[in-house]
Amino acid sequence: MKEISGGITSVPGISAAGIACGIKASGGMDLAVIFSDEPATAAAVFTTNKVKSAPVLISRERIRSGIAQAIVANSGNANACTGERGLGDARKMAELAAKSLKIDPEFVLVASTGKIGRYMPMSKLEAGIEKAISSLSPEGGHQAATAIMTTDTFSKEVAIEIDLQGKKAHIGGMVKGAGMIEPNMATMLCFIATDVNIDRIMLQEAIKNAVDRSFNMICVDGDMSTNDTVIILANGKSGNKKIEGQSDDYNIFLEALSYVTTTLAKMIAKDGEGATKFIELIIKDAANDQEARKAAHAISRSPLVKTALFGESPNWGRIMSSLGASGVEVNPNVVDIWFDDLKIVENGIGFGFVEEDAVNILKKAEYTITVNLGIGSSSATLWTCDLSYDYVKVNVT
Amino acid sequence: MKEISGGITSVPGISAAGIACGIKASGGMDLAVIFSDEPATAAAVFTTNKVKSAPVLISRERIRSGIAQAIVANSGNANACTGERGLGDARKMAELAAKSLKIDPEFVLVASTGKIGRYMPMSKLEAGIEKAISSLSPEGGHQAATAIMTTDTFSKEVAIEIDLQGKKAHIGGMVKGAGMIEPNMATMLCFIATDVNIDRIMLQEAIKNAVDRSFNMICVDGDMSTNDTVIILANGKSGNKKIEGQSDDYNIFLEALSYVTTTLAKMIAKDGEGATKFIELIIKDAANDQEARKAAHAISRSPLVKTALFGESPNWGRIMSSLGASGVEVNPNVVDIWFDDLKIVENGIGFGFVEEDAVNILKKAEYTITVNLGIGSSSATLWTCDLSYDYVKVNVT
Repeated sequence: MKEISGGITSVPGISAAGIACGIKASGGMDLAVIFSDEPATAAAVFTTNKVKSAPVLISRERIRSGIAQAIVANSGNANACTGERGLGDARKMAELAAKSLKIDPEFVLVASTGKIGRYMPMSKLEAGIEKAISSLSPEGGHQAATAIMTTDTFSKEVAIEIDLQGKKAHIGGMVKGAGMIEPNMATMLCFIATDVNIDRIMLQEAIKNAVDRSFNMICVDGDMSTNDTVIILANGKSGNKKIEGQSDDYNIFLEALSYVTTTLAKMIAKDGEGATKFIELIIKDAANDQEARKAAHAISRSPLVKTALFGESPNWGRIMSSLGASGVEVNPNVVDIWFDDLKIVENGIGFGFVEEDAVNILKKAEYTITVNLGIGSSSATLWTCDLSYDYVKVNVT
Repeated sequence: MKEISGGITSVPGISAAGIACGIKASGGMDLAVIFSDEPATAAAVFTTNKVKSAPVLISRERIRSGIAQAIVANSGNANACTGERGLGDARKMAELAAKSLKIDPEFVLVASTGKIGRYMPMSKLEAGIEKAISSLSPEGGHQAATAIMTTDTFSKEVAIEIDLQGKKAHIGGMVKGAGMIEPNMATMLCFIATDVNIDRIMLQEAIKNAVDRSFNMICVDGDMSTNDTVIILANGKSGNKKIEGQSDDYNIFLEALSYVTTTLAKMIAKDGEGATKFIELIIKDAANDQEARKAAHAISRSPLVKTALFGESPNWGRIMSSLGASGVEVNPNVVDIWFDDLKIVENGIGFGFVEEDAVNILKKAEYTITVNLGIGSSSATLWTCDLSYDYVKVNVT
């Protein structure tokens, strides 16, 4: 497996485009189209929020066929809490794209991100979708990745090449994140393409598994959006022997896909709204996997922990407190905590570290916090960020 | 029932004192003693955090006897995550007070609030406890309420008078709150005294019930501390017929006690760290009581909801989204939302309100948000505040 430059359009047979069509008042890019020149095997994971956006409802319905050929995505408007009219608008977006692309509307998936509760400006979409499709290009991945950004400060893409029994295959992806991140994928749109030849069931299993260890293990603010969508299209052009069950090839693909999703997930945490720190939080020796994940989420979503990290303050008591409040099985008398390699807490009590040493770690842009619960053998790793003045600033409107 | 001026020392037989003994580097008041001139029936509710402070562990043990006569409480140091030494220090605080007061050390309860993970400065406490006890006064309630403050911006006290079959009785209380508020009582110390004559079992039932509808229904930041403590002492001096079971007198007492705890709880939400708004959040027509409470907590702890409220932005989509992510049974198509009496959302869709009208409500210092889930008949009321720059500022160290 090696990382290659470029994003989703590094994958043979995939073209993309990103344009401005006037949804964003700023005039910024706000419409992306991703197109596979042949119908592709498709799988997806959607938000578990009970309030689901119209495009999530439509795409969730369509993904059941296991085939898709295009994705139309916009930023600037979530098309959520928009009722029947919103559903009609999402369907219409797909229809417009299908007509322009001369494909079956059922093969078009839709996704939206932005403000909730506003109707889509359909006349702008009508002109915009046509324009975006006329701009489709095998070099258009970066434009598309830029067009799905909301409060993101940089576009997020990655691509890799793998070898499946002598056949070169590719996976390329893009994501937008920033706020409402965690748990279980927050305002997050992620589109991935691959030329691996794989059946629908294994593709679904792989994407679910990869999302679980990546996007479900980041935390910006503990909110979860109505619009979260991860879609993967696999067009089979690599020519590898079709992956139809558990196999070495499946494992290679899963590892590669997890690398793609984890890389994108870390980019989201790094670009958390107002974030000044990127923190890898490792829970060790928890009673079981679920408890390890729960402890990681509880600590990383605590506003008191997050503000202390912003303040570069080694206030480890807040970590202990959020752990104790997490509902996870905890024996305070056996908990150890490290900042990078510096032991801060031993058996639940301050380890007598030199304050300046701890502060020097917390002053870094990236570091690791390890919490050892000392009661089992399960671990979890989560990527998170701090809570700064700028988080408040970004979110006051 | 009528509210009277004064706090805990409005209750006959109760004296209190608050002094500065040097725990706080600022030199501010940091030590309070509350004393009942006779052994009182005692009940308490403690944090459910699995990481419990030393004073919580000691007081929880001692309250089992159902009798107490004094409370020693300090701010500036939580005495949490301090191991065996911390337990010894908490016991020593009680012993010092008992010696000075010439009472059984088992009748002294202890409570601490402040930074976690630091040992208590026992030499300061030794001199301080003696000094505080020599300052005990039947007018000392306000001094004591001031001495337990941490990041609170005002002291929090209330007192009421009730009539029990012709006998006048009193309930007076104090609380400190500010950060780490929610759920299930956060860094919160609350001391209540009453001259009602009531047995231990009914006193415990009443305080648990009152806490449940008050302190467990406020949310500042969703954190829960290691030190939360609510203690009530009942000295029986009112001379009412002893409350020993469910009765009209019990109901009068419970309502009065709930008024006291609710009044104090609202003060905590109003004084939330950095808070600029005080919001009463009402959930209606939930599937059951537990779901109503869960929905209220989920909405009120969402950083995106809280920052929008700080920004006076009628971004109701964030309320819908946090509701959908709450895990509560929700049918988005029947949800209605009001700001005060202005309907904002009907059947999950914006109600076409005039934006300026909504903003005018959100500009107020206090208002109500009502969320009707439309699927059952259970309600819950919660008091919360917004998330401002100053919340971050207060918590960076």
